[in-house]
Amino acid sequence: MSSFHEKVCVACQPDAEPASVEEIQQFVSGTEWSLIERIGVTQLFRKYSFPNFEKALVFTNKVGAIAEEEGHHPEIVTEWGSVTIYWWSHKIKKIHLNDLILAARCDVGYSSM
Amino acid sequence: MSSFHEKVCVACQPDAEPASVEEIQQFVSGTEWSLIERIGVTQLFRKYSFPNFEKALVFTNKVGAIAEEEGHHPEIVTEWGSVTIYWWSHKIKKIHLNDLILAARCDVGYSSM
Repeated sequence: MSSFHEKVCVACQPDAEPASVEEIQQFVSGTEWSLIERIGVTQLFRKYSFPNFEKALVFTNKVGAIAEEEGHHPEIVTEWGSVTIYWWSHKIKKIHLNDLILAARCDVGYSSM
Repeated sequence: MSSFHEKVCVACQPDAEPASVEEIQQFVSGTEWSLIERIGVTQLFRKYSFPNFEKALVFTNKVGAIAEEEGHHPEIVTEWGSVTIYWWSHKIKKIHLNDLILAARCDVGYSSM
């Protein structure tokens, strides 16, 4: 597991610097997160597996709590047996360090299920 | 609001009859649900609006309860300010009457928020 979950989120303004290519590559290569191009924006995504719908929904709520804590929210796709998360920063239309941090915290939440 | 939410779901088997074109058209024309083609399947979808993430997540959980009650589950996309629901029946790769019923129950759940 990466150590990104221990970093501190900062307020993301429209002129904020996105995460560097090196930071993103370091994160992606050390985790099960991948990059995807959606609505013209490079986003982080990971699909988590669950044995049923109930557990998937529990994880969705865990991710919701992680997001609310920092006031930064992903797209969460909940289905029977899986939850897919997409992180990016709407204000800069890019991946910010906050996205790497919160993606890492999702992994921590998943590992404790 | 349609009266579909009062109908009774039946177990959907791989040889089950899909909802008829007339049933689907009646449902779509009387509600805010639309049809969309995704992964080669015609699906029902509706995007519900909310003033924040917290309320969106509350609705996601409501939809989860509606789904669990019948053992039939949609795809739920939770974001800040919206929840988008997609209903279709995986076993027949089409829209079944169950999908219309549960889509209607989502509307009932939304109207009581």
